[in-house]
Amino acid sequence: MIYFDNAATTKYKPDEVIEAVNYYLRDVGVSPGRGSYSLGIEASRMLYKSRTAVGKYFGMSHPERVVFTKNSTEAINLLFKGLLKKGDHVIISCYEHNAVLRPLQDLKQKGIIDYSVISREDLGLEADTLLEKYANENTRMLALTLASNLTGRIIYKEDWMKFFHTKGIITFVDSSQGAGKLALNMTESQIDFLAFTGHKDLYGIPGVGGLCCESKAHFIPLIQGGTGIHGENYVNPDIFPEGYEAGTLNMPAIWALKTGIEFITAHSDTIRREEKALMTYLLQGLTDIDGVKVYDIENERVATCCFTIDDLSSDKTISLLDSKGICARGGIHCAILAHEAIGTVESGAVRISLNYKNKKAEIDQLLDTLRSR
Amino acid sequence: MIYFDNAATTKYKPDEVIEAVNYYLRDVGVSPGRGSYSLGIEASRMLYKSRTAVGKYFGMSHPERVVFTKNSTEAINLLFKGLLKKGDHVIISCYEHNAVLRPLQDLKQKGIIDYSVISREDLGLEADTLLEKYANENTRMLALTLASNLTGRIIYKEDWMKFFHTKGIITFVDSSQGAGKLALNMTESQIDFLAFTGHKDLYGIPGVGGLCCESKAHFIPLIQGGTGIHGENYVNPDIFPEGYEAGTLNMPAIWALKTGIEFITAHSDTIRREEKALMTYLLQGLTDIDGVKVYDIENERVATCCFTIDDLSSDKTISLLDSKGICARGGIHCAILAHEAIGTVESGAVRISLNYKNKKAEIDQLLDTLRSR
Repeated sequence: MIYFDNAATTKYKPDEVIEAVNYYLRDVGVSPGRGSYSLGIEASRMLYKSRTAVGKYFGMSHPERVVFTKNSTEAINLLFKGLLKKGDHVIISCYEHNAVLRPLQDLKQKGIIDYSVISREDLGLEADTLLEKYANENTRMLALTLASNLTGRIIYKEDWMKFFHTKGIITFVDSSQGAGKLALNMTESQIDFLAFTGHKDLYGIPGVGGLCCESKAHFIPLIQGGTGIHGENYVNPDIFPEGYEAGTLNMPAIWALKTGIEFITAHSDTIRREEKALMTYLLQGLTDIDGVKVYDIENERVATCCFTIDDLSSDKTISLLDSKGICARGGIHCAILAHEAIGTVESGAVRISLNYKNKKAEIDQLLDTLRSR
Repeated sequence: MIYFDNAATTKYKPDEVIEAVNYYLRDVGVSPGRGSYSLGIEASRMLYKSRTAVGKYFGMSHPERVVFTKNSTEAINLLFKGLLKKGDHVIISCYEHNAVLRPLQDLKQKGIIDYSVISREDLGLEADTLLEKYANENTRMLALTLASNLTGRIIYKEDWMKFFHTKGIITFVDSSQGAGKLALNMTESQIDFLAFTGHKDLYGIPGVGGLCCESKAHFIPLIQGGTGIHGENYVNPDIFPEGYEAGTLNMPAIWALKTGIEFITAHSDTIRREEKALMTYLLQGLTDIDGVKVYDIENERVATCCFTIDDLSSDKTISLLDSKGICARGGIHCAILAHEAIGTVESGAVRISLNYKNKKAEIDQLLDTLRSR
């Protein structure tokens, strides 16, 4: 089987990550912050180590300011619903995932906020021109995806972050695609908030994501409940980050995430080099096939690309590939704005997302299959 | 090490549960509902099997109506924040966990709802008397914990559920404590909604819980984002349960939960018999020690109890036990209403929560330690 759906989840997990899960389940097995007995305190220490591993990885000035959630979608909802107030305006790109679009649209439909979408043509604007064109007196946040989950194009711009931040506008990055492939430093790049997911390029397992909070702007919890501390309060205690993590945390996944981050830190050069070489090879191959149109091919990218074929729908392409044991995704990719931007709402698109463990021979099989359609 | 904190999490996990996690991570590893390739479809089938395993376990008429969340706290927040409307009134017991109290208090502070708390004295009331005393024309929901996480007392009453349900009041059970120890049948008992957690008595791992929806009453999603279906919508599609599960699901834990439920289904008689015998032995031993006061000792219970000691604070008791390798919890147990009800807000309480894997010899060590304090 050939797996080309790494933008959905990294199927390959390092042995040490799986071992970390097993270690937690078999040798620790208790919840952090719940018991003051020695093993409970050890669990709390492991939670702190995982938290700071994430915070350091993203270059936070206070690496413990990481709220763990179940995935990046929850982290984004937590921030948007907890921070944005009536009248606020948000600027997003036309490449945002539905995890960014939908909570904003929900808030808009409730009459709370409004948002503007940076068009594809305007993605090359200088920061000051962008501000002039898209901001108004109510603009409170600029939210950008690190990279498109559809075309792989890198959308995040450090210049924009820094400029908007100096203008007092909160800067947010959805790093679900690309964290682990691109190194981000929140302090240097003046990123106020960053959402991440564990199970993609950070090589963790599903069930954990989070919100890195470089900014101390106050936001309210999404979920109320037991926090293990200040149990006497009738509402969540105003303690960061515990007050935002009600309920039992997914410690096996949190501990494994620390191991995943250690893995990518140790292997990032190899991962980037291999993935870049594979992607260059794939793009060259795809463009050489008659009737194949690749999107955003000229742009800087992560190891994801998408294409359409003149004479074969994306659904039929996926079925054809599946018949050859090739896993890829077609249709609409949870990013309707991006499909609108590149003009593939009706057709859908075939997405190929690579991992450094893929082989050239696998790409050859893909290309051969497309050629002989 | 002796582990008596099973009400926080079941430290012992059956081998087959851990094997299920590993199987998913190593041999499946993809996300359900994201790809139409064969392995993606297999992942979706596994999700469906897990969903219906949960639904059948709780006696649902439509066992697929289970929304997976990260824990029971999220499930409770999802229901309360998604269902309750301005002016609604909720009746809860004085034994509710903070996971029930805090979202309600939050809604109350926002001026949306009000709630009443059934006093400890009134827990024996007949359903009609309860309704007369606590309900008003705005009462929309009766929410009861299955068992107290503090004293172990069973709070849930089938008679109440049935009576309130026939009066058009939504019935809800928080089964975080006791599911797996007590068999619940939502259809027969007319339970409209039930929240569960995977990592306690269902023998799953942390990172999964859910909301069983026997009722078709409409509620809005807590989290907006990618759902893998109807990606073209600007908000979550109105599809049940997928529209309530935005973001990547924790499939390793969901698949392991199915295995956990198979485990308790096969071993429930043994588990209940062993735990009952151990608890009887423990309660007898505790009551024989001078200065020890056990709470709710006369009540039907799960395998949890709590006590205070005249001449030793709960914190000091926990430290003493920890020095002997005994893990138990003291202080306030994320259920402030219950502490108020039994009068242990100032003192805190020592909680012992058993598992059928515990041994009489372990209880003897606990009792010896308390005797020789």
